[in-house]
Amino acid sequence: MHTLNLTLLTDLYELTMMQGYFETDSNENVIFDLYFRDNPNNSGYSVMAGLEQVIEYINDLHFSSEDISYLESLGLFRPGFLNYLKDFKFTGNIYAIPEGTVIFPREPIMKIIAPIIEAQLIESMLLNIVNHQCLIATKASRVVYAAGGDAVMEFGLRRAQGSSAGIYGARAAMIGGCAGTSNVLAGKMFDIPVLGTHAHSWIMNFKDEYTAFKEYSKLYPDRCILLVDTYDTLKSGVPNAIRVFRELIEQGKKPRHFGIRLDSGDLAYLSKQARIMLDLAGCEEAVISASNDLDELLIHALKSQGARVEAWGVGTNLITSKDCPAFGGVYKLVAIQDKNGQFIPKVKISENLDKITDPGNKTVYRIYDKKSKKIRADLITFVDEVFNPEENLLIFDPIATWKKTLLKGGTYEMRELLIPIFIDGKCVYESPTVMEIARYCKKEKETLWEETKRLFNPHRVFVDLSQKLYDTKSRLLEEHSGGYK
Amino acid sequence: MHTLNLTLLTDLYELTMMQGYFETDSNENVIFDLYFRDNPNNSGYSVMAGLEQVIEYINDLHFSSEDISYLESLGLFRPGFLNYLKDFKFTGNIYAIPEGTVIFPREPIMKIIAPIIEAQLIESMLLNIVNHQCLIATKASRVVYAAGGDAVMEFGLRRAQGSSAGIYGARAAMIGGCAGTSNVLAGKMFDIPVLGTHAHSWIMNFKDEYTAFKEYSKLYPDRCILLVDTYDTLKSGVPNAIRVFRELIEQGKKPRHFGIRLDSGDLAYLSKQARIMLDLAGCEEAVISASNDLDELLIHALKSQGARVEAWGVGTNLITSKDCPAFGGVYKLVAIQDKNGQFIPKVKISENLDKITDPGNKTVYRIYDKKSKKIRADLITFVDEVFNPEENLLIFDPIATWKKTLLKGGTYEMRELLIPIFIDGKCVYESPTVMEIARYCKKEKETLWEETKRLFNPHRVFVDLSQKLYDTKSRLLEEHSGGYK
Repeated sequence: MHTLNLTLLTDLYELTMMQGYFETDSNENVIFDLYFRDNPNNSGYSVMAGLEQVIEYINDLHFSSEDISYLESLGLFRPGFLNYLKDFKFTGNIYAIPEGTVIFPREPIMKIIAPIIEAQLIESMLLNIVNHQCLIATKASRVVYAAGGDAVMEFGLRRAQGSSAGIYGARAAMIGGCAGTSNVLAGKMFDIPVLGTHAHSWIMNFKDEYTAFKEYSKLYPDRCILLVDTYDTLKSGVPNAIRVFRELIEQGKKPRHFGIRLDSGDLAYLSKQARIMLDLAGCEEAVISASNDLDELLIHALKSQGARVEAWGVGTNLITSKDCPAFGGVYKLVAIQDKNGQFIPKVKISENLDKITDPGNKTVYRIYDKKSKKIRADLITFVDEVFNPEENLLIFDPIATWKKTLLKGGTYEMRELLIPIFIDGKCVYESPTVMEIARYCKKEKETLWEETKRLFNPHRVFVDLSQKLYDTKSRLLEEHSGGYK
Repeated sequence: MHTLNLTLLTDLYELTMMQGYFETDSNENVIFDLYFRDNPNNSGYSVMAGLEQVIEYINDLHFSSEDISYLESLGLFRPGFLNYLKDFKFTGNIYAIPEGTVIFPREPIMKIIAPIIEAQLIESMLLNIVNHQCLIATKASRVVYAAGGDAVMEFGLRRAQGSSAGIYGARAAMIGGCAGTSNVLAGKMFDIPVLGTHAHSWIMNFKDEYTAFKEYSKLYPDRCILLVDTYDTLKSGVPNAIRVFRELIEQGKKPRHFGIRLDSGDLAYLSKQARIMLDLAGCEEAVISASNDLDELLIHALKSQGARVEAWGVGTNLITSKDCPAFGGVYKLVAIQDKNGQFIPKVKISENLDKITDPGNKTVYRIYDKKSKKIRADLITFVDEVFNPEENLLIFDPIATWKKTLLKGGTYEMRELLIPIFIDGKCVYESPTVMEIARYCKKEKETLWEETKRLFNPHRVFVDLSQKLYDTKSRLLEEHSGGYK
């Protein structure tokens, strides 16, 4: 039994800063935005995921007496602050884009409004959770796209970076569109389909491959997928599988679902040959599934070679997002409340334009084409701005400002993406089930243009700033650059 | 509070196979080897890690009534098997190479001897734990090597693939040689040093940078590391830091440990300029630390450019092992006990030579040069083979068998690497502390030749098979290839 309070799962500097704010009596309300700078895997979009775990984390926050003793032992923290931690809980507001939504770089996907001591503590874990699940949901979405209508199965537990990478990676993979996972605990926790049949060791434990297949088919008469590459796929595995399938068919015991799994060798060649062999033997219904270091590019290549695979088991490359194993979410201070209750926008300067933050208390609108229901752009605005989709709206690129688009009134619709999750420390949002999120995510992807979904050089979706936000940001940058010449 | 029984954290096929063995009454003792095929990150060696968590996992194994109800709900499992699971526990033997040991491809790093039903269940989690921690320990070891004598700090929690990737990644990073971690919970759980100071948000929360630094220095008078890149590193950050340091020095309050952290921009240029500025101001003792998407290659490059950095904070690229985020550990059946109690060696064929298993009940000896104490080779043998280091030993490459080396009697020493961890289901091994493992690992690396430790094109350490093992493997391969022509 693992019993783990995650409250101390934070970076030490969060705690040293918290004590700093405590000791200097500067526990104002502040706003942090959680956003990311680039889509992973050269994707044209990302998929939001992890919110349910953020909610659990926030609801569970508390420093046990053991935690406080540990902090005391570090010799860094004073009695007053340690005493304050005893009753610590989160009292702020959190807004987020719901899980399964397609999201784009630079827009706040979460917004935290809270006393800075509280907002600081949760930085590390909010990023940890959201970075991980967005990463895997996005990767899964790409793999599922490459597979066309075929089923994609998540098989990565053994190569996941630890147990929670396995568990929550499987969850995120389902959100991204996988048909099921091999991970039994994830199946139990999230009520998602679990899949799997047998390994090479099953075959090796019987006197021969035929006997192993036969025994397996007796045990699992409804769903009989046989792994055919233990000895020799086309000379031994497929013929033995056919022999078993034929026997079942001739005895009137045809399994509801049956087929083979290829796990090594040239999957294009082997699947085509196996298909011919199965069809000639009257096993047209037998499904061919494949695994072995697959990813979206390999599946795309295999399909373009005419591979006869209908189900794909994807392990390592999905569960670790191998070509890009980190989602670059960041958590940045964007406003501080003054004594009159006003949020004063703050900007963080950087020589790298991309690293300059968007200041202020903001929200995000998604703008859809009214007819096609496809996304035209996302617009980051201050929360108090009002828009009327019946009126014309001029949007522009926030870096190359001469790139302008006029949205004619009546041709577009707007939807606010950030919704309240916590208000005054209380959760006001009920997470849908994982399968509900997965269905919503599938619909979300229908709002993307094909050019955005494609695997290579996808079209970038515009994320613009409102004129008012752009002007405020420009003013703050000017002020700063004048400040210390 | 997270309360999680990890027993169901396994692949579904383990459970379907387990039921298969249960129903067919074929629960013989078998041997599985856990080994890996390649070092990650083009390394010349890997570092063993994760054993303590394997022990916890095995000791905790039990199916709760909730777990069994869930399995029942899947409609795949029969009452007899589900009933058997109620009292399930691990009763077998596990041998392993201790944590912190340098390890090489193809040698068994764990060996499981158990009834096949039990051995099968634990496959997924043994691989998950060992793959994750070996990966991060190995990556950390490379980063620490690149840093020369400088301290490397693990800062990756926010980009880790979930909470356990953060916690156990920090643990593995310490084994690999890091000086500390920002991860407070890992600090508490494993009694390892925690490090960290403040973020940009600290600076932005005060009226100016100088005030933020000054307040910080009052709060942490012993260890004052100031982040200098919020506005402009050389024009604002470093001068303000110097002003604070000078004031402290002049007041006779020089901190025991003080310095600056660079987190963006050209770290080579900035560190050299900052060093000059600090030295001219009489702050020769101020340490310069750096962070920002570092890895071993970047640290190597910065050092070769003469960067004046003495401590390196490494986040994303270490905690995810970004260039190679999966350690390719596998778990393969190598022997089955017959009715006379003999273990019959088994081999798994593959068209890929690398994927052919080494059959039988084996162990691993490390052969050292007697004088230099450096590793000459590792030798995989059957457990019942006896060697006398006073006699000549001819070893040979198991693929290119004409490559032979004669070890002269008296010039070498042998050490058996696999040691008992569980015997008859009881743990017989006490894990050292993480810091003890880290010290042992440092010594272990002294047994490697420089050519094996280097970052680029390292020299491969030989892992050979004993003549007897080689002969048995060859015979089994011949038998198989004759079996189904």
